Amino acid sequence: MELQKILDSIEGLDKNYVEKAQRRLDSLTKPLGSLGVLEDIAKNIVGMRRDIFPSVSKKVVIIMCADNGVYDEGVSSCPKEVTSSVAQNFTKGITGINIFAEHTKSEIVVVDIGIDDDISVNGILNKKIRNGTWNIAKGPAMTREEAIRAICVGVELTTDLKNKGYNLLATGEMGIGNTTTSSAITAVLTGSSVENVTGKGAGLSDNALQNKIRVINEAIEVNKPNKNDPIDVLSKVGGFDIAGLVGCYIGAAYNRIPIVIDGFISGAAALVACEINPKIKEYIIPSHASDEPGIKNIMEKLQLQPMLNLKMRLGEGTGAALAFHIIDAAITSYTQMGTFEDAEIEQYVPQQ
Amino acid sequence: MELQKILDSIEGLDKNYVEKAQRRLDSLTKPLGSLGVLEDIAKNIVGMRRDIFPSVSKKVVIIMCADNGVYDEGVSSCPKEVTSSVAQNFTKGITGINIFAEHTKSEIVVVDIGIDDDISVNGILNKKIRNGTWNIAKGPAMTREEAIRAICVGVELTTDLKNKGYNLLATGEMGIGNTTTSSAITAVLTGSSVENVTGKGAGLSDNALQNKIRVINEAIEVNKPNKNDPIDVLSKVGGFDIAGLVGCYIGAAYNRIPIVIDGFISGAAALVACEINPKIKEYIIPSHASDEPGIKNIMEKLQLQPMLNLKMRLGEGTGAALAFHIIDAAITSYTQMGTFEDAEIEQYVPQQ
Repeated sequence: MELQKILDSIEGLDKNYVEKAQRRLDSLTKPLGSLGVLEDIAKNIVGMRRDIFPSVSKKVVIIMCADNGVYDEGVSSCPKEVTSSVAQNFTKGITGINIFAEHTKSEIVVVDIGIDDDISVNGILNKKIRNGTWNIAKGPAMTREEAIRAICVGVELTTDLKNKGYNLLATGEMGIGNTTTSSAITAVLTGSSVENVTGKGAGLSDNALQNKIRVINEAIEVNKPNKNDPIDVLSKVGGFDIAGLVGCYIGAAYNRIPIVIDGFISGAAALVACEINPKIKEYIIPSHASDEPGIKNIMEKLQLQPMLNLKMRLGEGTGAALAFHIIDAAITSYTQMGTFEDAEIEQYVPQQ
Repeated sequence: MELQKILDSIEGLDKNYVEKAQRRLDSLTKPLGSLGVLEDIAKNIVGMRRDIFPSVSKKVVIIMCADNGVYDEGVSSCPKEVTSSVAQNFTKGITGINIFAEHTKSEIVVVDIGIDDDISVNGILNKKIRNGTWNIAKGPAMTREEAIRAICVGVELTTDLKNKGYNLLATGEMGIGNTTTSSAITAVLTGSSVENVTGKGAGLSDNALQNKIRVINEAIEVNKPNKNDPIDVLSKVGGFDIAGLVGCYIGAAYNRIPIVIDGFISGAAALVACEINPKIKEYIIPSHASDEPGIKNIMEKLQLQPMLNLKMRLGEGTGAALAFHIIDAAITSYTQMGTFEDAEIEQYVPQQ
């Protein structure tokens, strides 16, 4: 697979389909535009899929799991082994995302793209680039070639899922230390200060937060990522989990299926993908306003607004899975609501 | 039924149960507090129900339908007949709320509490107080006695639903002109200016909005509602739909079941209920940030934050029904997620 060819072949929404969807929305028995964001979601998915009655019945949350060398700098409140434990727990059905996936009738795909542990468990896809990245406070997280390989894992996986009939994707992750890499990427690509885009992750103390900010500033100073070259930024201060997710966004746009951002980490991946090719944005649906501060900067840069305001910060794709309900409701109302003709109402459309 | 006795017997959440729920939440395999608002919802419902594993499996949206005499002042972009037509369409399964109720596996109860039309349709509960209120620009909407009767309709209905096994309620409405009455109530009870809390409803022009504001100011001037007597405010500048919903909130608190605010109109009813008895607030769950400006003032006054940010303004209980998904997810994750013991993780709890 040649990544550049895939990137070059991505097209935005089909405007004719979006217009057709708008006409249908305006014929439904409700004041014009009164379903708000649900109307936008419905018509955009029509434009993505080039299908006037698209289905979002086969949903899947892709969970990229990897370790981060920057863990050694004391940036996380959790022991590193949690990455491997939780990845394995995904296959046992007892984690947050298992519950949320079941609740939204969706499936999960767990990918080991760089866990620092030799796992061989049914239900975890082995796409390991390496056993964790290097420590970004000392040098680059990975080589540029590794970053591209990790991106290709995401692109290939989404293409495979599309071929299996999945029509709505979401992004999740598990990787101790990955709010640190996400903050580094966000600071570089949005031009915000590290302080503004760095939070307490799973539960750091105030002192530990100061250390995390120091480490990220150091990583940016040591690596000098080129903000005009998103793959340079990704490889120097990112992680394998984020790189894999970047590939998922690229693959979703290439395959013309909607893909949902979860929280801060998958938001950072969305930002990288859209910097690589801005057309990808048209395939991305936001979900919740994570409690990590950097998500605000990402949403502003991408001009997206979260639909859910739940102060969640669990990751794993849990917020994105909850958004599946809303997206499903958007398509269901668009598809199934009665028209003015059905309802025998003539003048429900506001008189201006 | 004596309303005052019911009001006097309302108790807030049981703090022991809330604490027990908090302990369970903290034992689940996730960083402490990382499910955010979902954790608050779960523990509050435990505290409402006095049940450590409460169910929200039987959900219902109560839709109070009524006409408003203030329609004569040209405050609505829709013809008045739409109240009756849409109320009847609820029973045909083709309206927005029908789709959303089905989508959330909930039911609807449609109540004619004051439609200005003689309807006899299966599926509409006849609890008519009168064929529409009087015009608030000229005098009170209803007598105090009528307001209390309408409130009692809501209280009795929720008690009946509780007895039938329903354990999660939402409030919806249909009544052309009811954003006008809601703005009037909101202005009086929050002390905001009419301009600040008045919007375009289903789709007014700028000129028509100015007329609506003028009419509301006139209604307040003519009626001089006493802001320290919420039933006085309700009867003078409210409507039968809102009064019925006030009764639903009172009844939910009395019966210790959660009840969800939909948009602006049901928010105005929640405000009246909480002014009557502040303990009622503990049983209320917000849903979405409606596009009507006054909802912000209501949420601020009630110290609630909407969970959904979807710019919807359809009414009918559609936003509240969407929130059912979130509430269901809150209870499901609280009930079904694995504990640290199950997961064989020892130190996932952040090290401070």
